[in-house]
Amino acid sequence: MTSPFLGELLGTMVLIILGNGVVAGALLRGSKAEGAGWIAITAGWAFAVLAGIFVATATGSPDAHLNPAVTIAGAITSGNPSKLLVYVPAQMIGAFLGATVVWLHYLPHWAVTEDPGLKRACFCTDPAIRQTAANWTSEIIGTFLLILIISALLSRSVGASGNIPTGLAPYLVGMVVWSIGLSLGGTTGYAINPARDLGPRLAHAVLPIAGKGGSDWGYALIPVAGPAVGAALAALAILLIGF
Amino acid sequence: MTSPFLGELLGTMVLIILGNGVVAGALLRGSKAEGAGWIAITAGWAFAVLAGIFVATATGSPDAHLNPAVTIAGAITSGNPSKLLVYVPAQMIGAFLGATVVWLHYLPHWAVTEDPGLKRACFCTDPAIRQTAANWTSEIIGTFLLILIISALLSRSVGASGNIPTGLAPYLVGMVVWSIGLSLGGTTGYAINPARDLGPRLAHAVLPIAGKGGSDWGYALIPVAGPAVGAALAALAILLIGF
Amino acid sequence: MTSPFLGELLGTMVLIILGNGVVAGALLRGSKAEGAGWIAITAGWAFAVLAGIFVATATGSPDAHLNPAVTIAGAITSGNPSKLLVYVPAQMIGAFLGATVVWLHYLPHWAVTEDPGLKRACFCTDPAIRQTAANWTSEIIGTFLLILIISALLSRSVGASGNIPTGLAPYLVGMVVWSIGLSLGGTTGYAINPARDLGPRLAHAVLPIAGKGGSDWGYALIPVAGPAVGAALAALAILLIGF
Amino acid sequence: MTSPFLGELLGTMVLIILGNGVVAGALLRGSKAEGAGWIAITAGWAFAVLAGIFVATATGSPDAHLNPAVTIAGAITSGNPSKLLVYVPAQMIGAFLGATVVWLHYLPHWAVTEDPGLKRACFCTDPAIRQTAANWTSEIIGTFLLILIISALLSRSVGASGNIPTGLAPYLVGMVVWSIGLSLGGTTGYAINPARDLGPRLAHAVLPIAGKGGSDWGYALIPVAGPAVGAALAALAILLIGF
Repeated sequence: MTSPFLGELLGTMVLIILGNGVVAGALLRGSKAEGAGWIAITAGWAFAVLAGIFVATATGSPDAHLNPAVTIAGAITSGNPSKLLVYVPAQMIGAFLGATVVWLHYLPHWAVTEDPGLKRACFCTDPAIRQTAANWTSEIIGTFLLILIISALLSRSVGASGNIPTGLAPYLVGMVVWSIGLSLGGTTGYAINPARDLGPRLAHAVLPIAGKGGSDWGYALIPVAGPAVGAALAALAILLIGF
Repeated sequence: MTSPFLGELLGTMVLIILGNGVVAGALLRGSKAEGAGWIAITAGWAFAVLAGIFVATATGSPDAHLNPAVTIAGAITSGNPSKLLVYVPAQMIGAFLGATVVWLHYLPHWAVTEDPGLKRACFCTDPAIRQTAANWTSEIIGTFLLILIISALLSRSVGASGNIPTGLAPYLVGMVVWSIGLSLGGTTGYAINPARDLGPRLAHAVLPIAGKGGSDWGYALIPVAGPAVGAALAALAILLIGF
Repeated sequence: MTSPFLGELLGTMVLIILGNGVVAGALLRGSKAEGAGWIAITAGWAFAVLAGIFVATATGSPDAHLNPAVTIAGAITSGNPSKLLVYVPAQMIGAFLGATVVWLHYLPHWAVTEDPGLKRACFCTDPAIRQTAANWTSEIIGTFLLILIISALLSRSVGASGNIPTGLAPYLVGMVVWSIGLSLGGTTGYAINPARDLGPRLAHAVLPIAGKGGSDWGYALIPVAGPAVGAALAALAILLIGF
Repeated sequence: MTSPFLGELLGTMVLIILGNGVVAGALLRGSKAEGAGWIAITAGWAFAVLAGIFVATATGSPDAHLNPAVTIAGAITSGNPSKLLVYVPAQMIGAFLGATVVWLHYLPHWAVTEDPGLKRACFCTDPAIRQTAANWTSEIIGTFLLILIISALLSRSVGASGNIPTGLAPYLVGMVVWSIGLSLGGTTGYAINPARDLGPRLAHAVLPIAGKGGSDWGYALIPVAGPAVGAALAALAILLIGF
């Protein structure tokens, strides 16, 4: 049954289970991980990327993008947009399903957590300080760096053609995501991935979460379109520099 | 003297010494690690897995399962249950002995720690919020992901046949356990391993721990059977997907 | 367009975006990472080094120094100072630009942070206790160790000629920087890199940062010249020992 | 000038600069790392081991023991005690010099730290709860595990003969030390290395540290002889098991 569609779907689902899972663990009332803090949240997302890549690769997507922004950048640098039609829907469905699993996994904790904002934060991002231009800028910068660094890591000068041992490259990609989370996540919570935000936001809107508030659709455009713009700019920079 | 039985026994013993050891260090009164928190506890379990795998491999079990759930999944995907009879008893004995070493290592700290619940937490898991169905669900989800991700990591598309350098695969398995602990451990404390919970719970019941309370046998079924169910479901998913 | 100049410039820019970024995230008021602490700050700088090396290598500088102190040490051990003229300006420009991106990324957070000292700390270093001789000593010791350990890691006995797999060496260099930050950074904030301090200090002086104070030019000599002295001494030690 | 003596001396010196350095950073008043906690202290020691191994290897000791307990275990398993005479003095001198460098590096911080116990903790270990038998037991257990796990890692079934890529083995040894610190360090502060405790304790006795108290020589036997006993027992276990 393995296929690129299934690989992207399952890989993104695992990414979101573990990524949104660490946020839920650190924020929801009564969780053993409550208050684990920024180092734990960013580490959890880094390992979520690592795990998602392994699952995507094993189940049929050797690209293991797990992120429409990565697929967009690849479409621009390769000049071939054909993967967008297969990968992006798979990523969105996987992200929605992953968020649903997190809701189920932490089921008794939603009712005992009072703040609806904390509950929504276990699904999708929101800005530390709400300023439209600044929030766009943050998502664009974060995703630009994500694409630039991962492309450098996998470029012909560094890790192309199997130079990096199997298993090490996904680990290093995870560490790059840890880096971006630690260093640039403080402003908008580093969506840097349209599926990571939109899929779980849809799940938040649809699922019967105890005591939930609104899904903040007024902010939803930025963490979806900002990463797309950042990825496109990074792809153009990579073409310009020529690596 | 090396043998698969000895390897699983010693590997699981090392896993539990270091895994339960980090919990004891973080929870027991007066420990230099007291209050080290969730990032330290989950890191400690990750490195415990790494260390246990090396010891198991060197002393005779190249499989280095250290976990009946992993052995169950392997029995289902391979169609050959013969390892269960050798590995599972070894894992249970190793886990019991490991918990005994932790008790001995932290000997002066039991009497000065008042809360019997903290002391029992240095042996076996308990749920953050006690709800039977939710607790079963959490252990099933956590173990399902453990088996799915490790199987992906070692699948023919990724790391089979020595593609991953020696030493790196055990490290990556440790990082996967760090991930599951950080992201999914907040609810039931991620047993995800029947031996990790039952062996130390027996040790808690038997050892003369200063000021101990009950061993909470009413909860014991979930962290033993939940991981078994989760592993079986993951094995079926792997057979269905075919990777 | 790739060239050693561009590689050092872009690599150092990425180093400073992610390195100064983690400081800004941990210190600026309202950031989601506020209060993340020393383990997060030092981890952020370690991963910043890793990311900077990949970008520098991919865009034309296989040396990936990112640090005039490293270039100085290389000039002494090789007896060839020619790279200084190309690399050091590129590193300085990259560091200035990187600090500018951090200012832009965290734009709404400068106005809400009252303490001008915290804001300057997101650009350049300052000593925990201001004592000229002790501060010089700290920067010299820290940089001496940086050069000694990285030279050992890349020496012919350990990792020269591709002994260390591609991708692992940059990771290990990052871990060495994590080590020095954790262990020796408590005194002067471990500049250990003249460009890391001078470039961002210039940016602090020039940029219209809301509510900023002075740029503390009275201290600026130590984090620029101290690392240069430490690197030169380490280079002489390496020549003396002969490894 | 490279030689096994110099390699063990410089490698152990680097180990202690970075290992005792992280303790000083986390404990001394006014340090930027003050209060960084157990995760930072144990991480710092792990990376200190990694850095020490690289320096020892590059400067003439491919064994890179850095620890008399490791040399003792090697003498027993190999049946050849000849390295003890060269390595142990080098390790002791290196540890003394390393502690001296830490004193110099943190020079302004000794006078502003009131508690003499905190200052001594930047040099040598002391028990969380002082009970002779329990403290001996802790050091024996910790060192037994250190030797067992590292020997497993480097055994012919796992990492001998270059199976583990260059650079990865030292990293994994560092992670094992992180593990033992996190999980077993809470009781006696995990000396697990006679040189790590005795060399710095001598430095504490000799150096003019501002406001220092006694060097606690009444405890000094345990962190020196306990690790030696633990290492000898582990070596016998390895011979008995035969790996």
